[in-house]
Amino acid sequence: MDPDRVVIFDTTLRDGEQSPGISLNTAEKLEIAHQLARLGVDVIEAGFPIASNGDFEAVRAIAREVHGPVIAGLARAHAADIERAAEAVRDAERPRIHTFISTSDIHIEHQLQSTREDVKGSARAAVAHAKSFVDDVEFSPMDATRAEVEFTAEVLQIALDEGATTINIPDTVGYSTPDEYAAFLTRLYQLVPDLRGAVLSTHCHDDLGLAVANSLAGIRAGARQVECAINGIGERAGNASLEEIVMLLHTRAADLGFTTGVQTREIARTSRMVSRLTGYPVQPNKAVVGRNAFAHESGIHQDGVLKHRQTYEIMDATTVGLEGNDLVLGKHSGRHALKSALAELGFDVDGPALNTAFKRFKELADRKKQVTAMDLEALVTDELRDQLRSYTLEWFDVDVSNRRPPHARVSIRTPDGDEALGDFTGDGPVDAIFRAINAATKREARLREFRIDAVTGGQDALGEASVVLELAGQSAAGQGVSTDIIEAAAQAYVRALSNAERKVHAAAAEHEPEVELTGAP
Amino acid sequence: MDPDRVVIFDTTLRDGEQSPGISLNTAEKLEIAHQLARLGVDVIEAGFPIASNGDFEAVRAIAREVHGPVIAGLARAHAADIERAAEAVRDAERPRIHTFISTSDIHIEHQLQSTREDVKGSARAAVAHAKSFVDDVEFSPMDATRAEVEFTAEVLQIALDEGATTINIPDTVGYSTPDEYAAFLTRLYQLVPDLRGAVLSTHCHDDLGLAVANSLAGIRAGARQVECAINGIGERAGNASLEEIVMLLHTRAADLGFTTGVQTREIARTSRMVSRLTGYPVQPNKAVVGRNAFAHESGIHQDGVLKHRQTYEIMDATTVGLEGNDLVLGKHSGRHALKSALAELGFDVDGPALNTAFKRFKELADRKKQVTAMDLEALVTDELRDQLRSYTLEWFDVDVSNRRPPHARVSIRTPDGDEALGDFTGDGPVDAIFRAINAATKREARLREFRIDAVTGGQDALGEASVVLELAGQSAAGQGVSTDIIEAAAQAYVRALSNAERKVHAAAAEHEPEVELTGAP
Repeated sequence: MDPDRVVIFDTTLRDGEQSPGISLNTAEKLEIAHQLARLGVDVIEAGFPIASNGDFEAVRAIAREVHGPVIAGLARAHAADIERAAEAVRDAERPRIHTFISTSDIHIEHQLQSTREDVKGSARAAVAHAKSFVDDVEFSPMDATRAEVEFTAEVLQIALDEGATTINIPDTVGYSTPDEYAAFLTRLYQLVPDLRGAVLSTHCHDDLGLAVANSLAGIRAGARQVECAINGIGERAGNASLEEIVMLLHTRAADLGFTTGVQTREIARTSRMVSRLTGYPVQPNKAVVGRNAFAHESGIHQDGVLKHRQTYEIMDATTVGLEGNDLVLGKHSGRHALKSALAELGFDVDGPALNTAFKRFKELADRKKQVTAMDLEALVTDELRDQLRSYTLEWFDVDVSNRRPPHARVSIRTPDGDEALGDFTGDGPVDAIFRAINAATKREARLREFRIDAVTGGQDALGEASVVLELAGQSAAGQGVSTDIIEAAAQAYVRALSNAERKVHAAAAEHEPEVELTGAP
Repeated sequence: MDPDRVVIFDTTLRDGEQSPGISLNTAEKLEIAHQLARLGVDVIEAGFPIASNGDFEAVRAIAREVHGPVIAGLARAHAADIERAAEAVRDAERPRIHTFISTSDIHIEHQLQSTREDVKGSARAAVAHAKSFVDDVEFSPMDATRAEVEFTAEVLQIALDEGATTINIPDTVGYSTPDEYAAFLTRLYQLVPDLRGAVLSTHCHDDLGLAVANSLAGIRAGARQVECAINGIGERAGNASLEEIVMLLHTRAADLGFTTGVQTREIARTSRMVSRLTGYPVQPNKAVVGRNAFAHESGIHQDGVLKHRQTYEIMDATTVGLEGNDLVLGKHSGRHALKSALAELGFDVDGPALNTAFKRFKELADRKKQVTAMDLEALVTDELRDQLRSYTLEWFDVDVSNRRPPHARVSIRTPDGDEALGDFTGDGPVDAIFRAINAATKREARLREFRIDAVTGGQDALGEASVVLELAGQSAAGQGVSTDIIEAAAQAYVRALSNAERKVHAAAAEHEPEVELTGAP
């Protein structure tokens, strides 16, 4: 491979999905993984198979159905973890097992409650065991940047001796500065000459706002894989953001000299999809994918930009796929136009799925003059969520006023096909309808988070609601899309409730292995 | 001053306020400026006085009322700009004029349509003119990082000769990498030895995700002022985020060796206030101030954190003021408890203002079991917005259902004191009530953006709505807070309409000077 080609390792579905309140089902993870393949990432870390049966199923489905990228599964340095990961990625075209153990004394002492000698033994056994299943084995010394570099070097030599092909250096707590991170990598190359035979990788967290800069410093020190996530999601302040790293290397290619395999025009759409399915908003001033990232997108066609775009813009919005919004359908558009529009967006929809999509499109076109590409994306992704839904919102009536308390009545179709009615007088219309849904389903779900955003601008915008709720100790998220925000909220609540209910059943049916989900790089 | 003390220059109210859709009135800007003073920033760039009468008034009010920080006003290198800035900051304890002109050929040719010789002449005249009004003059060569360093050095020598005391090096388009930015500053020190007699400053934009890293690189190269904004707001992808820079210097003080005067415990509150008043959300995975930035705040009390907090946390949430949420009032709390709670939050409320606050507190306590510090903050900031309001929402009734189109009726008190009724059948309840408000006020406002967030979690959360609308070519924002999201939305719309109406009147009454607002560092 070209020595200046940087491997993009996407961990949206693993480190990103570990963020509080995110709970993607298999269909949603598959949809994101397919989009990541279209985006052209080199490696998809699809999950942490031993963490739960849901994680395992999703990794296996992605390994079987998503073609192109390497599919990686995460595993602690335990035999059971590695076997579970191996089973999950087995059917991938190019499977990878990514195993890790901490090398910092603070982690060894307080989290692992172990010793340096044991860590060396575990690392050796883990890489050897992983290697018995797959050729492509990645090893991470967790919390490396707070570890003694000499001890970390010893552990890396062991991992390389056992056949690790990629060595990843996590700044697990987001503590490093670019100079320190580069110096740490440079020192490792000195201490472990065999590192030159493997791919060195960065994994930087953004706690001090330096994740992208640290990743760049790592690349310049010799790393040729960058671990990152769409929209920079992940533990705490998240990972290095994929779109920032890629557009940095792309925009400054003439000076930096590095390339990636990413199709930058897919960036905006991938960002929107991940934001929509995770319920995590992107702030307007977020680099590359924020609403204001491009001056001409934010409606300011000021003199400077009009005279000469480069006066204020170093990237072109079309490069990251922010055009395409000119695709517009109206109420007179037919089934064929819808099918081509969806195909252009990368959704291959046919048969009954096309009928459903067309029906929802027509309903929307009746309420909204122009249906844009972003509206279609929202609708199609919204449809995805229906496949596993157990409760359905049949109808609702809400009376809202500031002169009396709001009252809601709802009808819910239960998984058994029965119709259940509920009503409630609440503090606000959303409160009232949520509690009416609780009454109808006889569930005591507690709302944890609630958010509404407009998908597109203007008076007839689509509203998108996100709900996180808790039911019997399980937390789950749901989203809904409608021109009516009360309806969007109710849909989101019903879906979150369905997701939570499935989790409650799953937890009752099996003993979920007790994994510290956040105990990962 | 301590040679390792870094001056924190906050540009939230200037570069931040130039972001699309943000439109703060004088009362809101004052509130933010008072909070910035409590936060302990060294310099507040309060606005761009020639940009509009509103900007001028706000800078003057801040100069008169906010004590502690230096108050700066921005001015292009034109006599009229500088005179207007001088007038606006005149009454400050320590006034500063910040003047700028581009030194990059791309800006000189395409934006200024001028020559290098003219730029030198303008810079000389501007600094000399500013110096005739104030001692403290800052000069910025705009787009410096894309300019020839030798020419930039010539212009800086001129600015220093005329008495500039701070020299700021803007990475206006967010193009630099840390190595390049440090090298540029180092080269300037070589070319302009007199720079050592001034304070060198950084001003980095985040287009490639490197604003914080570039600022740090600048400090290490000798800069002792950092220009930054709360939540990293600003043009396009925004400025270096104040909280990230400050917490980076604070958390890594032992290794980096720099200090600031910031009271870090005020960071969380400042961030919330700016987010609320600008209507710009902070994404959950934003460093330092995002909802998930601290593991223990996000509800994950996983083993590692419990065993030993430092296993996964490099900062303590209390350091940035994320505790304090334990302050809780209930429906039986009295006027005195409210007054002390507000005082603890830094709001000095007495007399009729306390009566109003108590009335709203009681209304809220009736609908919500526990009123937290964050709820109180939202209420008090909400009250602030009433001072200049011209329309008032008297009452509304909305009928929402998915079985028939939603219908809204509203009563609006006009600025003349009349009651105006309106009703509308819309696509959704928010659409219906917005159009009913248009009907009542006989205004053809167009909705541009709409957003709802929960201020606090839980089923009885306060909802906060943000609206951006356009009326007769003027765009304006409004916010509303209520446990009822329809009410919050209607309040936000009525306030945005009032703000837009004032702008329309102001534009008609006077010739606003034509300033390219975004033509600034």
